[in-house]
Amino acid sequence: MSVAEQLYPKEACGVAAVFNVPDAAKILYAALFSLQHRGQESAGIVTFDNGRLFTHKSMGLVNEVFKPGFENALPGSCGIGHVRYSTTGESSPQNIQPLTALCTDGSWAIGHNGNLVNDVTLRQEYQQRGAIFQTSTDSEILLHQLADPRYMTLPDRLPALLSKLKGSFAFVLLNNGKIYAARDPWGIRPLSVARLGEGYIVASESCVFNQIGAEFIREIRPGELIRIDHAGITSSWFAESFGVPTGQCVFEHIYFARPDSFLFGQSVYETRISIGRRLFQESPVGADCVVPIPDSGVLSALGFSQAAGIPLQFGFVRNHYVGRTFILPSVSARKERADLKLAVAPEIIRGKRVVVVDDSIIRGNTCRRRIEMLRKAGAVEIHLRIACPPTCHPCSLGIDFPSRVELAAYNHTVDEIRQSVGADTLAYLSLEGLESVVANPRQFCMGCFTGRYPVETSEERTKSILEKR
Amino acid sequence: MSVAEQLYPKEACGVAAVFNVPDAAKILYAALFSLQHRGQESAGIVTFDNGRLFTHKSMGLVNEVFKPGFENALPGSCGIGHVRYSTTGESSPQNIQPLTALCTDGSWAIGHNGNLVNDVTLRQEYQQRGAIFQTSTDSEILLHQLADPRYMTLPDRLPALLSKLKGSFAFVLLNNGKIYAARDPWGIRPLSVARLGEGYIVASESCVFNQIGAEFIREIRPGELIRIDHAGITSSWFAESFGVPTGQCVFEHIYFARPDSFLFGQSVYETRISIGRRLFQESPVGADCVVPIPDSGVLSALGFSQAAGIPLQFGFVRNHYVGRTFILPSVSARKERADLKLAVAPEIIRGKRVVVVDDSIIRGNTCRRRIEMLRKAGAVEIHLRIACPPTCHPCSLGIDFPSRVELAAYNHTVDEIRQSVGADTLAYLSLEGLESVVANPRQFCMGCFTGRYPVETSEERTKSILEKR
Amino acid sequence: MSVAEQLYPKEACGVAAVFNVPDAAKILYAALFSLQHRGQESAGIVTFDNGRLFTHKSMGLVNEVFKPGFENALPGSCGIGHVRYSTTGESSPQNIQPLTALCTDGSWAIGHNGNLVNDVTLRQEYQQRGAIFQTSTDSEILLHQLADPRYMTLPDRLPALLSKLKGSFAFVLLNNGKIYAARDPWGIRPLSVARLGEGYIVASESCVFNQIGAEFIREIRPGELIRIDHAGITSSWFAESFGVPTGQCVFEHIYFARPDSFLFGQSVYETRISIGRRLFQESPVGADCVVPIPDSGVLSALGFSQAAGIPLQFGFVRNHYVGRTFILPSVSARKERADLKLAVAPEIIRGKRVVVVDDSIIRGNTCRRRIEMLRKAGAVEIHLRIACPPTCHPCSLGIDFPSRVELAAYNHTVDEIRQSVGADTLAYLSLEGLESVVANPRQFCMGCFTGRYPVETSEERTKSILEKR
Amino acid sequence: MSVAEQLYPKEACGVAAVFNVPDAAKILYAALFSLQHRGQESAGIVTFDNGRLFTHKSMGLVNEVFKPGFENALPGSCGIGHVRYSTTGESSPQNIQPLTALCTDGSWAIGHNGNLVNDVTLRQEYQQRGAIFQTSTDSEILLHQLADPRYMTLPDRLPALLSKLKGSFAFVLLNNGKIYAARDPWGIRPLSVARLGEGYIVASESCVFNQIGAEFIREIRPGELIRIDHAGITSSWFAESFGVPTGQCVFEHIYFARPDSFLFGQSVYETRISIGRRLFQESPVGADCVVPIPDSGVLSALGFSQAAGIPLQFGFVRNHYVGRTFILPSVSARKERADLKLAVAPEIIRGKRVVVVDDSIIRGNTCRRRIEMLRKAGAVEIHLRIACPPTCHPCSLGIDFPSRVELAAYNHTVDEIRQSVGADTLAYLSLEGLESVVANPRQFCMGCFTGRYPVETSEERTKSILEKR
Repeated sequence: MSVAEQLYPKEACGVAAVFNVPDAAKILYAALFSLQHRGQESAGIVTFDNGRLFTHKSMGLVNEVFKPGFENALPGSCGIGHVRYSTTGESSPQNIQPLTALCTDGSWAIGHNGNLVNDVTLRQEYQQRGAIFQTSTDSEILLHQLADPRYMTLPDRLPALLSKLKGSFAFVLLNNGKIYAARDPWGIRPLSVARLGEGYIVASESCVFNQIGAEFIREIRPGELIRIDHAGITSSWFAESFGVPTGQCVFEHIYFARPDSFLFGQSVYETRISIGRRLFQESPVGADCVVPIPDSGVLSALGFSQAAGIPLQFGFVRNHYVGRTFILPSVSARKERADLKLAVAPEIIRGKRVVVVDDSIIRGNTCRRRIEMLRKAGAVEIHLRIACPPTCHPCSLGIDFPSRVELAAYNHTVDEIRQSVGADTLAYLSLEGLESVVANPRQFCMGCFTGRYPVETSEERTKSILEKR
Repeated sequence: MSVAEQLYPKEACGVAAVFNVPDAAKILYAALFSLQHRGQESAGIVTFDNGRLFTHKSMGLVNEVFKPGFENALPGSCGIGHVRYSTTGESSPQNIQPLTALCTDGSWAIGHNGNLVNDVTLRQEYQQRGAIFQTSTDSEILLHQLADPRYMTLPDRLPALLSKLKGSFAFVLLNNGKIYAARDPWGIRPLSVARLGEGYIVASESCVFNQIGAEFIREIRPGELIRIDHAGITSSWFAESFGVPTGQCVFEHIYFARPDSFLFGQSVYETRISIGRRLFQESPVGADCVVPIPDSGVLSALGFSQAAGIPLQFGFVRNHYVGRTFILPSVSARKERADLKLAVAPEIIRGKRVVVVDDSIIRGNTCRRRIEMLRKAGAVEIHLRIACPPTCHPCSLGIDFPSRVELAAYNHTVDEIRQSVGADTLAYLSLEGLESVVANPRQFCMGCFTGRYPVETSEERTKSILEKR
Repeated sequence: MSVAEQLYPKEACGVAAVFNVPDAAKILYAALFSLQHRGQESAGIVTFDNGRLFTHKSMGLVNEVFKPGFENALPGSCGIGHVRYSTTGESSPQNIQPLTALCTDGSWAIGHNGNLVNDVTLRQEYQQRGAIFQTSTDSEILLHQLADPRYMTLPDRLPALLSKLKGSFAFVLLNNGKIYAARDPWGIRPLSVARLGEGYIVASESCVFNQIGAEFIREIRPGELIRIDHAGITSSWFAESFGVPTGQCVFEHIYFARPDSFLFGQSVYETRISIGRRLFQESPVGADCVVPIPDSGVLSALGFSQAAGIPLQFGFVRNHYVGRTFILPSVSARKERADLKLAVAPEIIRGKRVVVVDDSIIRGNTCRRRIEMLRKAGAVEIHLRIACPPTCHPCSLGIDFPSRVELAAYNHTVDEIRQSVGADTLAYLSLEGLESVVANPRQFCMGCFTGRYPVETSEERTKSILEKR
Repeated sequence: MSVAEQLYPKEACGVAAVFNVPDAAKILYAALFSLQHRGQESAGIVTFDNGRLFTHKSMGLVNEVFKPGFENALPGSCGIGHVRYSTTGESSPQNIQPLTALCTDGSWAIGHNGNLVNDVTLRQEYQQRGAIFQTSTDSEILLHQLADPRYMTLPDRLPALLSKLKGSFAFVLLNNGKIYAARDPWGIRPLSVARLGEGYIVASESCVFNQIGAEFIREIRPGELIRIDHAGITSSWFAESFGVPTGQCVFEHIYFARPDSFLFGQSVYETRISIGRRLFQESPVGADCVVPIPDSGVLSALGFSQAAGIPLQFGFVRNHYVGRTFILPSVSARKERADLKLAVAPEIIRGKRVVVVDDSIIRGNTCRRRIEMLRKAGAVEIHLRIACPPTCHPCSLGIDFPSRVELAAYNHTVDEIRQSVGADTLAYLSLEGLESVVANPRQFCMGCFTGRYPVETSEERTKSILEKR
């Protein structure tokens, strides 16, 4: 998708957890820093030491929330961390994760990436039992389940609790010096575990492990709960999927994940190169150069260029002093920054036939502006290639697409979109093409292209209820 | 008590509520500002408008928490406010009041001045039912009671809830545009109501009403709950005391309350003047001047001076650019400031026989330093007079005295204390003297002098449990 | 003067300097804290250590500017400090003192209390020579004189420089580990020196010395410059006054100085008591109580009460959680606070004949509001007594009175003022009365009452020129 | 150069100026944002309106210094802006540019990119005349020249002043609503002018013009001063070079400038592609992929890849949530961040023969760490190619290289460096190769490779003198 459109498909969160790691807080900081692309609204770390929890969390980027010396207030060798962008729940301080609660079996801290779809029902049930909700997030449900006396007598209540949840989730939990991690039965959001020295680290993406020198063990499996303590990793199951994914979010590969992550059994980098190659095979075109929309279009553009034998050129230059502007909450601030984010290198474009590769088109507005920039710089032909099929359906599993009617591809033909954005030709990757680049297409959710989702989401999403506090 | 000792007897809080008042937030700001002496650690206001609550609260003084323009984020014509110093619960942001919760009958906000003594029992009961406590304060109990489905079916559940609470409390509550106010069955903490234009205002002390031009109606009675809505004030009872106080805190008159407040049926100013006069009658002495320890000793010194015919002199000069330093949480900061808070006007003291009047002696350390200052400045005789009886007993009803063994008067005779602080003579007000200056002595709690309290407090106070989160 | 009027007569500044004192920065902090009443807009300290200057200064109160640990950035055993309220120059960060400059003989730091009257002429002269002014203050002149090569060859250029200055000044200077202090030839602003351990301390008022345990030596004399180094105090003269004052500001005794200071040869406390006594003798009245406007009217009210045999009562209660509100720069902020600053203790006033004692009347507006408050509280007679003669003339020597036409006493008779403020009777102290309470009336400037000033101020004061940068 | 090495070659600054442009402050903000790569320590804007200057400047990134609404305090249609990293002068608030001074002909503001080499001499001369320097920067010299009365009588004194300066400079000036811009006689630093609507914009790099839609006119010429007012652009000369450059900094093309800028007569983007191509021709090697060190090695790697026919791969993934870490002042903060800045995409590197392209090697430490990362990820051969000749000489004209002895290439052979960094082969671009990719090699300064500089810099650089204030 083009830059300003990236305003919309906002990813929920990134999570991390460590066990038996010296300087746990610093390692979690590094992990969150490496997961910053998954959530830029707030960041938080909770550690456990000497029988109690220590929390530091705040609105802002990881580098803003954690200032030099932060580790002194976060002692201990185990803990969890979270970066957040809100998909449900207001953007407000009380919603910052990890969330914590004192239960009769000690204090719990939780971090959640994903989107529950039965949270309103569960919330109402708990409220009728007298529970007080402190946040407007779906994630708080799990805290109330943990405090629920009906489960307290179970020898291990976590699988019982998790089996009640519908939707996407990657959870990390901290209690009494133990770490837990769980992934929803469909495997929608990613979560992996690695060895770090004498201890362990869990993270949303494996890019964290490369960064800090941890040794990748495996992905947590769909429907699996792992406990990490001094006995090592103990696995249990809370769903009958028994580890076979049926809903891995293909958009993680297309857009969200960092290219140096290994997700859902394959390399993100290689997936994107393959997409670019396939895109050329499906929709070849003669041109002078292939220009990516940075940064999410770079690898598919590289794959396209290699398959086509057309030289790659960085016709758009990105200003590195903004983050992903789309992920900032205030619309007005976003607008001004969007204009400063990209510039055209005019000598590269003038008089050229240009293939532009972008990851997706959501509404089409940003794409239109990018193409205008190239025209002004003197491009003589502009061939737009999109690294995924037309995005026709919204998502309630963690990708905050706009409502259906706002999606360019929902009610327009490809040619109408081409005209609207001003390209000479436009081609999307085909659904078959996308299926061809992932190992087991049936293990993926491609609902934003097909409208078929792994989880029933008929429950009316009444986010607004939650936000009236 | 002398200044640095004032570290210890810290008052819990001040509360206020308004109904049907234009610019409710501004009026609450003025009320909290006038109640600042009752709590300087944090301040907060919650207003109700258009079906929802608006909250602004933070650590700091009222003037620090509420900056120009704060009122824009606090719309509506009714609301409640709170200033806090912690007697139970940690000093931490999550404990700042008013507290709020979304219940099935809407959002509630509460503010509490006082100290519950059965809060640990109640907290444990709720935790066993699955409740999650977000603060370490006793005040949160009421929120969970409000959310408790067992009470939900009652036509008016507030009296039922309040009747479960033991200890001191003055509560203000806000729900669906209605204001509630309640005072514990013993009448330990003060709470009054006044008319303000077309609406009403409730506050811990009547000094608030003078300040903003409200017309004093009456004190809320012990065991009384009032509801204020468009039908006016509706009263109900939740205890058999039916309005006759048995435990009004005499220390409010001696020390806490502002002199321009009218409390427990009488003027604080006049009570203090009477104390000073009585103190002279009980323990006369010849001297050149009467010197108060500012500010809490000024009125008893004035009464003493008038009765004795000895001129009042302001031998101690106070630096106005500190607040009541004792109420600041960090010990080290306190120490340095304490040294800068008072100075001696040397010409007034040199060669003089001085009567020093202070409100109380807690540990005796500060008192000793003050007397040393006078000796250094050349006082030839120092006669110390204390505006209350010896303070021998701790308090669990809202005054945070040190433990019994630290109280100077617990294990020392008056003469030992005199020697320890370095005075030539020392006299306390007698208990009879104190009883003579209040209208109905039996309606007062004088437990810090007598060890007899209106409420059974045998329950082991395990504050530490609450603070381990 | 009444509270809100105190908006106007704003004092310039307070200065301090220490030599050979361990923890110089902390001692200067304590000194500035004790001089806070002389300037609340900004504060700064410069110390000297190991051949270089260390500076910390900022807008705000002393306690806001200097946070715990500030001393680590201010090493050394000598330094100077300054608190400021602007009389000339804008209220802006670049004007915060001490000012510093690197000259060819090392770095200099200066702090200035007072108001030069020939600064525009001097500034223009330096600008024509190519000097660049970094502030809009008169004080910067001295820096440019210090850098002026025409003086550099003189064996000791300071007296030569100082002799060029007209107006009021108390200067402290720091250069190469030596301290200098100078007072203008008329002795308009106060400045004293004391011994502190093995070293020395200089300060605007002696209240500083009491606070930190320094031993008062003497006041710096009019036209005297002292240098303090390891040889002790060395005195020199830069004016023919040779130490006989002719312009000591009587308003320091009436209003500015702290009562525990010893100024211009006498105790401020005793001066104010004498003023109150004299005020009664000149204008006796029968009444039930004497009520001061806090805090500046308290001592004259006490003197009045003692002379009259009428009991003192604190009918106005001051909220301690504002500083002197008048000294805050923003008018709107001031207004709201002024309303919250004082309250009436109603029981004390109701039905009473009241003598109100205030230090001065500037415009009359605040006074009028105070009297209204007493009327509302039920006072039956109000007799206003003012602790100085009518203030008819503006001041260009450091007191920022409003322009002449705004002064109530400039164009109204005493009876007109009485009517305007709503008092039953009004009496000012007579000029003779004021002269009777100071030791050598001819050594004082009483220009605000008489229009006769020690310094020719015919030079058109064009403050606005300075502020157009 | 590798990332951590980039700690060292820090660029001085970026400057911009606008004339007759609505919302001048916003345009300057956008310009500074686009020049952020040239200086990240502080940012500032000064505008002129209605006869006076308005300034906003502070330490921090452009987005930190200028918050929404900043433009309200910066009215007017002309102004100048500056981003800074210190090459001379301490890192402290008083040094933030633009600098301003009130002279007898009005207020001046100046912004400077570059490094004067005769500043110490000039500074001493002015100090001996009595000038007070407020900053420790070389740039302040020009302010004192502007205030110097010896030049005041000249009809146009700017050329006379500028002719006294030796070293590199690109100046923008603002006075009385007019804009001036000047470039040193050797043309060392870049500066260009463009038309923007009815007005003009001057900026260090033309990337600014692309970003905001301005129309490039030309570069300011070496030794040229232009004035921009309502008469348009008026040019004058202050050096005999008359526009022929002799010292254009080649490092601007290699490293500093943004690739979408047009500098010294050619496209930065194309220069870097040519360098990469030439680098392959000079030092070919067989390999599986070409991997750039992001971001400064990307274009030379692309050129290398195209010439070699070896596929480009983004084996290093950059975390976008740090700026150029090297440019942050605190060493400790830098170290931690450097480790998080880059990660390896392991699937791309494992088992591969890799060509690594970096822009330069300064000390060699970072380069060594990058190569270690590739080895750990499983690279079987590593061929390092450097996009410039060996850097053997320090620079006193604006590039803050370390001292000579710290430069890896100063005292080591290429093979020693290869061994030290751990590469299998290492090749630098030859000097002839570099000369072949720029239009007129003799118009460039290549002193960091040759030791031959356009300006005599024999004057002992005593930066430390300046920093002792």
